[in-house]
Amino acid sequence: MRTVCIIGVGMTMFGRFPQSNVIELGRTACLNAVRDAGVATKDIQVAYAGHARTGQLHNRECGVGQSILWELGISGIPVSSVGNFCSSGSTALREAWLAVGSGMYDMAFAIGVEKLTGREGKGRPLTSDGVELLTVMGFSPPVYFGNVLTRHMKEYGTTMEQLAMVAVKNRRNAGPNPRCQYKDPITVEEVIHSPVIVDPLTLLNCCPTTDGAAAAILCSKEVAGRYTNKPVEIAASALCSGPYEKCKDITSFGADRLAALNAYEYAGIGPEDIDLAEVHDCFTIAEIVHYEDFGFCKKGEGGRFVEEGMSGMEGKIPVSPSGGLMSRGHPIGATGLAQICESVWQLRGVAENQVRGAKVAFTHCAGGFQDTIELGDIQSSAVTILKRGW
Amino acid sequence: MRTVCIIGVGMTMFGRFPQSNVIELGRTACLNAVRDAGVATKDIQVAYAGHARTGQLHNRECGVGQSILWELGISGIPVSSVGNFCSSGSTALREAWLAVGSGMYDMAFAIGVEKLTGREGKGRPLTSDGVELLTVMGFSPPVYFGNVLTRHMKEYGTTMEQLAMVAVKNRRNAGPNPRCQYKDPITVEEVIHSPVIVDPLTLLNCCPTTDGAAAAILCSKEVAGRYTNKPVEIAASALCSGPYEKCKDITSFGADRLAALNAYEYAGIGPEDIDLAEVHDCFTIAEIVHYEDFGFCKKGEGGRFVEEGMSGMEGKIPVSPSGGLMSRGHPIGATGLAQICESVWQLRGVAENQVRGAKVAFTHCAGGFQDTIELGDIQSSAVTILKRGW
Repeated sequence: MRTVCIIGVGMTMFGRFPQSNVIELGRTACLNAVRDAGVATKDIQVAYAGHARTGQLHNRECGVGQSILWELGISGIPVSSVGNFCSSGSTALREAWLAVGSGMYDMAFAIGVEKLTGREGKGRPLTSDGVELLTVMGFSPPVYFGNVLTRHMKEYGTTMEQLAMVAVKNRRNAGPNPRCQYKDPITVEEVIHSPVIVDPLTLLNCCPTTDGAAAAILCSKEVAGRYTNKPVEIAASALCSGPYEKCKDITSFGADRLAALNAYEYAGIGPEDIDLAEVHDCFTIAEIVHYEDFGFCKKGEGGRFVEEGMSGMEGKIPVSPSGGLMSRGHPIGATGLAQICESVWQLRGVAENQVRGAKVAFTHCAGGFQDTIELGDIQSSAVTILKRGW
Repeated sequence: MRTVCIIGVGMTMFGRFPQSNVIELGRTACLNAVRDAGVATKDIQVAYAGHARTGQLHNRECGVGQSILWELGISGIPVSSVGNFCSSGSTALREAWLAVGSGMYDMAFAIGVEKLTGREGKGRPLTSDGVELLTVMGFSPPVYFGNVLTRHMKEYGTTMEQLAMVAVKNRRNAGPNPRCQYKDPITVEEVIHSPVIVDPLTLLNCCPTTDGAAAAILCSKEVAGRYTNKPVEIAASALCSGPYEKCKDITSFGADRLAALNAYEYAGIGPEDIDLAEVHDCFTIAEIVHYEDFGFCKKGEGGRFVEEGMSGMEGKIPVSPSGGLMSRGHPIGATGLAQICESVWQLRGVAENQVRGAKVAFTHCAGGFQDTIELGDIQSSAVTILKRGW
């Protein structure tokens, strides 16, 4: 498959916009991406729109991409909706990557959008799809990650202070980033003493409720040269469903390990080559588990990794330099492409919270739970590795 | 892009199965496809699940493919949900085609599934997504096609008898097909005098409410040779969003014309080469418009085309030899892949209602309405052309 580059990215502010709908949010992100790429809208040949829960939010499950693009004067081209829980945006990017990589299309739009506010009285409560009986019985993502945390503390001596350091670091990273929902600094004490959501997870250990959209324009490497001298290459885009091991260790996610392994192998890149990572820090404990699952540190050492500043801006691998889901917010389908936007800006050297000399960026989204929670793994994990194409 | 073949297909009976869920339906269709292809499930490397409205029906919008495949022992591979209104199944096929065509994967699963019964008290009424204000004001697909019909009658002299002949023909075709929801023959008189849904559209001019699933296994032409000496080639898979012309002629669909044009061009095949067509006969008038939009006959001559038997089993192009949506039923996301199943059987020469010597099959699904109905076009049209690969 031929090499595919990103030549333009755009996103909205992330925050609570109860008066906006997904089409307006998507239009803003797409327009920003078109301007960033400097392409004519007529040159875009195919598009994918990632969204996970829009059906309950805007009275539609299909046609989101068509409606967004029509407002930009783009019609007639193939447009599809893709959904994959919290990886929906990453899946849109991946399908655009395959479409251009195949040689069928030279330029593609990947769009991610979600609206989580303004749901009052509409549809069922927000929890992961695919977990029906267990939701009725009280299962929800915070419950699951609360269990992961308890186990991680017991097995590896991870502390609430280490957890809080993830939140503090990500909030500090968010400071200069205008697109983040929360930018004010917080302290370890504040995180630990914020209201308990699922013991021992407190409020500031959880990502917030957010609306937003993000988009990227992809093209073949050859075409990229016509528009920019700083094309960002997609070195790998791996997507895995859960391997669903029985009696598994809940402090590690098989789908994440597999997706990272596939991405490293395809890109010919290892954790030692990564200059920054935007991971799926939906909860602070998730970020700690991700350090371990992606080989940033050894198993069980995630707590120390953050405590010793290894994931900080001057550390071994700066993680969530944008502020992450914890500070930017997590509009489900938009997150994967927001990570791509932030990483592209890092590689171009123009991020507000810039990692010096960043050449390789690692991004990750994951979500969904298998019906049979005994199998205990996520249904979808996406890892994308970007690198400078110049 | 390299040539992609279909080596296995499978579907469920189509009908009303209020006690079944989408996962059970999907599992049956997939298992049938695996058996038909004679592949090992571990050889399947990527999967796409098409479904349009499952969110309201089974408490999930994502993870349908993952859950179906897990029950077949398939996990760890990339699995995505794709949605595109009534073209959702066709879109799943198309993404699988791109994934294999790109060279990234050798074998892919395309799955389509939907459940339309058992919706009582769950979610909003069944109408096309993307039409919010107009739905509140009374818009629905039968209203739209009722208008199309009235206009077609006025412009071209199309008669209720000609309309009814589509329903009668498709029901006759369904007779020997055990997978159809309705198989008993009907008469022109019965169609005309069935209850009025939207004047002048009567009940037997509309497709029924149906549950079902269908699936196909795709692989590269090279790999296909290991499993079968009758691989069916995907000669083209075109997908178009609506061109949304202003003040357009409502007796023709721009997205359909564009998708067919793109497919003919890519395949190097014209209407004169087609041995059979499975079109989106959601209403009898739709099938008549499709004859014209796809170049099976001249504009305005669709009524005469069916009256003169040109779309009959012994005609110029047998249309809906399987029974079509009118008789098989229309579980939204499943329909595109059901058309693929029926067409593969036709090309292999083993269909219950066989078109003699069929070498090239044309399939078509379309759906969705743009918010601004003034623009009056569908949001998604998919045309797939299959041909014998031997």
